[in-house]
Amino acid sequence: MWFQYKVRLTDQNMQIQKRSQSLKTKKANTMKRAQLYVIALGLMIAFANQTMAQGVDPLPSWQDGRTKHSIIEFVTKVTKEGSPDFVTPAERIATFDNDGTLWSEQPLYFQFVYAFDRVKQLAPQHPEWKTKEPFASILKGDIEKALTGGKEAILEVLAATHTGMTTEEFASSVREWFATARHPKTKRAYTEMVFQPMLELLDYLRANGFKTYIVSGGGCDFLRVFAEEVYGVPPEQVVGSSVNARYELRDGVPVIVKISELTFFNDKEAKPVGIHQYIGRRPIFAAGNSDGDFQMLEWTSAGKGARFGLYVHHTDADREWAYDRESHIGRLDRGLNEAGKRGWTLVDMKQDWKVIYPTGPK
Amino acid sequence: MWFQYKVRLTDQNMQIQKRSQSLKTKKANTMKRAQLYVIALGLMIAFANQTMAQGVDPLPSWQDGRTKHSIIEFVTKVTKEGSPDFVTPAERIATFDNDGTLWSEQPLYFQFVYAFDRVKQLAPQHPEWKTKEPFASILKGDIEKALTGGKEAILEVLAATHTGMTTEEFASSVREWFATARHPKTKRAYTEMVFQPMLELLDYLRANGFKTYIVSGGGCDFLRVFAEEVYGVPPEQVVGSSVNARYELRDGVPVIVKISELTFFNDKEAKPVGIHQYIGRRPIFAAGNSDGDFQMLEWTSAGKGARFGLYVHHTDADREWAYDRESHIGRLDRGLNEAGKRGWTLVDMKQDWKVIYPTGPK
Repeated sequence: MWFQYKVRLTDQNMQIQKRSQSLKTKKANTMKRAQLYVIALGLMIAFANQTMAQGVDPLPSWQDGRTKHSIIEFVTKVTKEGSPDFVTPAERIATFDNDGTLWSEQPLYFQFVYAFDRVKQLAPQHPEWKTKEPFASILKGDIEKALTGGKEAILEVLAATHTGMTTEEFASSVREWFATARHPKTKRAYTEMVFQPMLELLDYLRANGFKTYIVSGGGCDFLRVFAEEVYGVPPEQVVGSSVNARYELRDGVPVIVKISELTFFNDKEAKPVGIHQYIGRRPIFAAGNSDGDFQMLEWTSAGKGARFGLYVHHTDADREWAYDRESHIGRLDRGLNEAGKRGWTLVDMKQDWKVIYPTGPK
Repeated sequence: MWFQYKVRLTDQNMQIQKRSQSLKTKKANTMKRAQLYVIALGLMIAFANQTMAQGVDPLPSWQDGRTKHSIIEFVTKVTKEGSPDFVTPAERIATFDNDGTLWSEQPLYFQFVYAFDRVKQLAPQHPEWKTKEPFASILKGDIEKALTGGKEAILEVLAATHTGMTTEEFASSVREWFATARHPKTKRAYTEMVFQPMLELLDYLRANGFKTYIVSGGGCDFLRVFAEEVYGVPPEQVVGSSVNARYELRDGVPVIVKISELTFFNDKEAKPVGIHQYIGRRPIFAAGNSDGDFQMLEWTSAGKGARFGLYVHHTDADREWAYDRESHIGRLDRGLNEAGKRGWTLVDMKQDWKVIYPTGPK
């Protein structure tokens, strides 16, 4: 219903634009365009309000306002056949960062929590960990001290917990962890700390012919365990960091073994590269929440035709967390500076989202 | 039409099987099973013939016979809801090798021909190539001599012709080459040397809810230039060999530059690994033509439930080429030995295919 309405409205816009082109002077054109822009904007808001009033809101957890309208306007114009902004379904690629964009990431990336819990589980097989950092601190429950080892310590823990087993063994271990692990602050299962408004956005895009991808710095094999069930994103649409793997036969049965060699770290400049290698098309829509997503949004926006860049800004200390420029995780600094001039939409979590997490059983 | 017919037939088979299980002695069971197998086979062929007679043949370029029937039988049973072999659409992943499986590969992989032609095109910028092998031989048109340098020489030529440019520049160059290059023997454009029966198979699988992938030792970026138009396989469903790439800004415009570092060579044991890394699901259908595809078929077949492994055997020296165990390209030796005991279907190109290449404008 809202879709047909929007289609008609966009037709009107097109007629207005065509008429404006027949005017004689450049100045008049500019004036007219400014006026028409205001009229078009007014119509757009009127339309969006009407859509809400009709009760067919595709994004019910998003507050009515500029952010929500800009998303709906974009989706409407790229899906309207005959529109100058029309994009064929095959090219409707939307990429989403995961940590901080589709679910929370505080006080620590959830995948790291899995790794630390896994260290405790594996400790009986590694007596040497009792005296070896960062494992010793993890086993004592002193995560802060464990993290003082920086990136190298983290990589050591990830190698110890994410490699040396078959892909199926790893997936089982992650699946079991999700079933019982709870977040220290919210007491929710981690898969219930996904953002309800973003789930709606994923659904909305897919309902409009988009192929939705996750493009995350997180581990590809970790994400794939829950992405399909939780986000509706199938394994083949998950692009993440990955380690090398080896094919081998065990008693005649083929297995794939994860080995301790990081082959792709999907962050910052690597994200557009990952998009190229795994997807092979430039997205027309990209969403992130940190400077690690900057190049993904930049690459997306630099394509021809209508593009949408979205940054989730964590502004809600009560319902989630508030952090940006100075955060140790999910730092958003350059992105905040440049979002405006690059035409990217900043989602103000506190203002724009009616709810953060899905309701229902915790 | 044929689909409904098959569904009913499979129901009958199931009833027959159930009845057979209630028989009392093991021997009687074995006897009955053998008889029922013959009856079922007869029914299957009768069905297939009837299908043909009805003029709704999904694989018109395939000769009527065991190979074609086995494909149709497989697709029918995995798509019939309620069948013990039913596979949900999300899991219907089919992977196809490219060289020798979807198009010809003689006398030389077509991508190598592109590389050699490209050397000639780039020669003015590389005066040193006049005296440097393998470039000197390529420039003299002596490909045989150029190839005596083996794998290293090939890699050097591939690096010189496939890296150092942006992904868009590379795609343009490949696109231009396809537009004018012709095969020395057939005089066809290379994209017209795809196998008509395999195009039908791809279509048939997709019409039955399969997601069709290319999983090739060829370059991912090379394949993506034509895979969508020629095979109906979109870029994001192409898994191939790849080089590293770098994201950079040129006059403020982001580009992705292909760099001379082979990061993934998608052949033999690497194919199941590539399938895992890029697709994240195990296929239920895999097709290849050489020992380089052996592990892909093995990995596919080792999954639970109904699986289909297919080998294209090049047996047609008149219409295409005949080669297998001793070939310098597309060697099929172990695959020929083991296809039978592993339950893989060998396509005898000469016997099973009515036509090789698509008809129409050459």
